[in-house]
Amino acid sequence: MKIGIIGSGNVGGTLGTRWAQGGHTVTFSSRTPDSAAMKALLQTAGPDATAASARATVQSSDVLLLASPWPATKSMLNAAGDLSGKILIDATNPILPDLSGLEAGTSTSAGEMVAGWCPGAKVVKAFNTIGSSIMADPNMNGTPALMFYCGDDDAAKQVVHQLATELGFDAEDAGPLKQSRLLEPFAMLWISLAFTRGYGREFAFQVIRRA
Amino acid sequence: MKIGIIGSGNVGGTLGTRWAQGGHTVTFSSRTPDSAAMKALLQTAGPDATAASARATVQSSDVLLLASPWPATKSMLNAAGDLSGKILIDATNPILPDLSGLEAGTSTSAGEMVAGWCPGAKVVKAFNTIGSSIMADPNMNGTPALMFYCGDDDAAKQVVHQLATELGFDAEDAGPLKQSRLLEPFAMLWISLAFTRGYGREFAFQVIRRA
Repeated sequence: MKIGIIGSGNVGGTLGTRWAQGGHTVTFSSRTPDSAAMKALLQTAGPDATAASARATVQSSDVLLLASPWPATKSMLNAAGDLSGKILIDATNPILPDLSGLEAGTSTSAGEMVAGWCPGAKVVKAFNTIGSSIMADPNMNGTPALMFYCGDDDAAKQVVHQLATELGFDAEDAGPLKQSRLLEPFAMLWISLAFTRGYGREFAFQVIRRA
Repeated sequence: MKIGIIGSGNVGGTLGTRWAQGGHTVTFSSRTPDSAAMKALLQTAGPDATAASARATVQSSDVLLLASPWPATKSMLNAAGDLSGKILIDATNPILPDLSGLEAGTSTSAGEMVAGWCPGAKVVKAFNTIGSSIMADPNMNGTPALMFYCGDDDAAKQVVHQLATELGFDAEDAGPLKQSRLLEPFAMLWISLAFTRGYGREFAFQVIRRA
């Protein structure tokens, strides 16, 4: 698959690297593709990864991962241009700057706002509910970490399901995009436990079903 | 412990019964304590359970479980009278009548609203994130189901921790009461998976930490 990464921080960098190492063609969007940081990222990601402008990243990719800081999300999408027909995996959370909560609540969600800003894109909310170190290795003592996703386009969700499963996640479909209103607070819960309740980053959730 | 149950439906009935069977003194609040349904509940719960008016339930209990239908919550608390100094375990979720979402979002929560309606009560949000059949038996193939709780009073939270642990839960402190804004969407996620995504009621979450 040709995968573009919009927002190459912890989440975007980790996922893009692992997908490139797994044989996908990955383009990291960057305003400074020749920077030292990007060169280091590309060296780790290997020969199947390159860096490009936002617009070129979109043009060369079938699947886009949106992993931007929330305040920059709208402007980064504007810079990316037309996303019609693209699969856009939205891993953002509308987290307030002091981590005290979410900017958008149950009356809307970042997922739905992103969809409104990208008419025609097939938005799937995913990879927003856990930290990048778990994305780097979702194998938790032999058990796969849980990764919920949601969206309104079934074919796009199947693609995301495959991508998450390839990484070793227990990928589970949480329903339509509106479920972002629940997956975003779920992410905020993980974040607050990790950083203010002493859990640290090395934990995940698992679904257990009664045998 | 002397435990009063405000709202004796699936959640309140299950928890009250299990606590009574575990040796606690349980009072089920009811407007019709002599009804056939209440008699059946008391027969199951055993000799340590009785039924009483809301006001009498509060007066005879140190710990109160609030497990009311959300639209009835405020009036049931009004009927219960003064809750100053009581530990109030809030298991409600502000779920819209059609289960499509939550009435209150990240700008507030049922937990905080309940605290505002009960000045002086030590509100702990708990037992709101999973269905009553898991409360009946949190043992999931040898693994305890997860139960988050949150609140602003540490001593009250220790009590709730003990009560949840006695039932067999992996009880985990999610922080201050404001975290209800996250635990309520977490509950809504469980609900939507159970009832609209085909998971059914017999699943739970578990926290897995990297060994």
